[in-house]
Amino acid sequence: MRQSTFEPGEYERRIEETKARMREEGLDALVVADPANMNYLSGYDGWSFYVNQAVIVTPDREEPVWVGRGMDANGARATTWLSEESIESYSDDHVHSPYDLHPMDYIADVLEALGVSDGTVGLEMDAYYFTAKSYTRLQENLGEATFEDATLLVNWVRIRKSERELDYMREAARISENAMRAGIDAIGEGVPESEAARAIYDALIRGTDDYGGDYPSIVPLMPSGDHTGTPHLTWTDREFEAGDPVIIELSGCRHRYHSPLARTAYVGDPPEEMTERMEIVVEGLEAALDAAEPGVTCERVEKAWRDTIAKYDIEKEERIGYSMGLGYPPDWGEHTASLRPGDETVLEEDMTFHMIPGLWFDDFGAELSETFHVTSNGAEVLADFPRKLFSA
Amino acid sequence: MRQSTFEPGEYERRIEETKARMREEGLDALVVADPANMNYLSGYDGWSFYVNQAVIVTPDREEPVWVGRGMDANGARATTWLSEESIESYSDDHVHSPYDLHPMDYIADVLEALGVSDGTVGLEMDAYYFTAKSYTRLQENLGEATFEDATLLVNWVRIRKSERELDYMREAARISENAMRAGIDAIGEGVPESEAARAIYDALIRGTDDYGGDYPSIVPLMPSGDHTGTPHLTWTDREFEAGDPVIIELSGCRHRYHSPLARTAYVGDPPEEMTERMEIVVEGLEAALDAAEPGVTCERVEKAWRDTIAKYDIEKEERIGYSMGLGYPPDWGEHTASLRPGDETVLEEDMTFHMIPGLWFDDFGAELSETFHVTSNGAEVLADFPRKLFSA
Repeated sequence: MRQSTFEPGEYERRIEETKARMREEGLDALVVADPANMNYLSGYDGWSFYVNQAVIVTPDREEPVWVGRGMDANGARATTWLSEESIESYSDDHVHSPYDLHPMDYIADVLEALGVSDGTVGLEMDAYYFTAKSYTRLQENLGEATFEDATLLVNWVRIRKSERELDYMREAARISENAMRAGIDAIGEGVPESEAARAIYDALIRGTDDYGGDYPSIVPLMPSGDHTGTPHLTWTDREFEAGDPVIIELSGCRHRYHSPLARTAYVGDPPEEMTERMEIVVEGLEAALDAAEPGVTCERVEKAWRDTIAKYDIEKEERIGYSMGLGYPPDWGEHTASLRPGDETVLEEDMTFHMIPGLWFDDFGAELSETFHVTSNGAEVLADFPRKLFSA
Repeated sequence: MRQSTFEPGEYERRIEETKARMREEGLDALVVADPANMNYLSGYDGWSFYVNQAVIVTPDREEPVWVGRGMDANGARATTWLSEESIESYSDDHVHSPYDLHPMDYIADVLEALGVSDGTVGLEMDAYYFTAKSYTRLQENLGEATFEDATLLVNWVRIRKSERELDYMREAARISENAMRAGIDAIGEGVPESEAARAIYDALIRGTDDYGGDYPSIVPLMPSGDHTGTPHLTWTDREFEAGDPVIIELSGCRHRYHSPLARTAYVGDPPEEMTERMEIVVEGLEAALDAAEPGVTCERVEKAWRDTIAKYDIEKEERIGYSMGLGYPPDWGEHTASLRPGDETVLEEDMTFHMIPGLWFDDFGAELSETFHVTSNGAEVLADFPRKLFSA
């Protein structure tokens, strides 16, 4: 058995909060398909989200029910806090089936057995891996059920972190620092991007002297040269050239908790203009960090950034950050609160955000980020890494 | 600009085959949301599939239309073969929006502009990232459209590989060999699983002397000890112990093409019983490889395996392989043909499969896989790696 990632009491609290929200929404059952939400409620951790699986919460059951593929049931036994009667699995002929079988047929049977097939069932309609077909197949199987969109219901429970969760995020931050240092050290004229990716991965998985790192939900991104205006391209064999700006965005991961970090480097001595633009990013980021404290809205935090860059006649459309923590590919974001105009979410203690402002111009981009924890004293920044344009 | 991964002519052929299938299905448009299918038709390659995006094919347009997030449009310009008028992007307020905006609203507008909003629109209903909400939102926006399930339409076009695709898979196989060797060398008594994961990742990204490796669609899996019966758990800080069996499943990746490989190692000198069971796996695998040739069905290939293990009074329920190649997280499988009973897909030249038979017992599992290419002379196995139980 694995070492317990959380005490059972912590899972019970999460389930209670989820049930409270289910009562507010009038749900008789909640089908949780987002792998991060499944982990949050049950502890389940495995690379099996490429097949349908779910954690089902019902009001009268203390434990949720894990449902997945037969060959993953042992994984559920090894990683969840659930007892044997809360683990249900379907046979392999449901997987990419040529027999007109679908895993959702089995999940419908479990809902039936739980006595909620004629009730109001909450679905994470916009969660990764809950496909359109998953939905229509449930509809076909459960003609008596009423379905409600419960996207983000569990994500909103996740937004405030426990002490243990914060510990894991701080551990992830140590890994992020090491990986960022490794990446900046590896980058140089004539070095292939893949070499820098290798150095970063090495540090991400090596972790620290005390613990190793988990795989991050997003691979290290390091758009360079012309591509700093293309933030989500991954590495190639292209060699870095003198004069390339390189944006490095990465995250250490510990028990699936992240602490993302972004910095920009320059191959050679950066031109004055770039250094100045980076200083604007840092000034804006620090203004926004200063504004972050309990009782303040997300849009107010973003406004501190926007007001700062406006002094330099710069406008920027994109949001500058989002709530995050636990995650599986393809994302470490929680999809709830964002730091942007119109988001009136009020910051509370123990929320955690990745603040990632950047300025992109035609010829290059400058980006610098911090992950922070909202405390009664304001923002606690998790990583300790210099805020400047690096020369690589 | 990146070096071209494929000649434009190859993309045009793929589009033509897709259009031919669309005609058969009576589709006026096809909305492709699976990132591997998007790459296959357009060349698009970026870690941006955590937001909605699509490639839309219509019969009267030579090029498909790429639709994605504003900040990813430059990535589309850099990686696709499409001209500027075939790249459309939505503003950032559509992303995880608090404004009741959804990226599918924009994609609906693009369908409208293409003149197909009252036509028959094919959707990949069961593709990763095409969520239930993506579907209902399209329905709400396009009241005049008729939607048809076109899941796997493009995947079936992908099943036969071109020479260039096979080259990339062979290059990926070289990486897989290096990574498997690194993993087996790293494993030993007292070594943390994360150390072995690090060695494998290092080899996966280092690639060969001639080219680096891309990130694989599935992280290296190496269930060990009690966990060989839990095939999809990922590494921890647990240290390998003498007597642990360790299953290593990994894949090199080159231009998003994979060549997966699995082997089993044993920490120390393996007991006779385990060696014998591995010999059964190898005998069954080789019988199935011998059976694989053009004109034979998938279920016939599986039967060769099943007949072999039956001689040893062993029965196994799971399928033993699947068509694969191009992929993005969470999977490198194509979800079309599987090597299992009931799958009557006839093998054709230039199909590629990952054959991964295994035998799991209460105390340990033995697994060994090969990726193969169907040629007129039978199966060409892509990797060259000994078929045995390794001592680590």
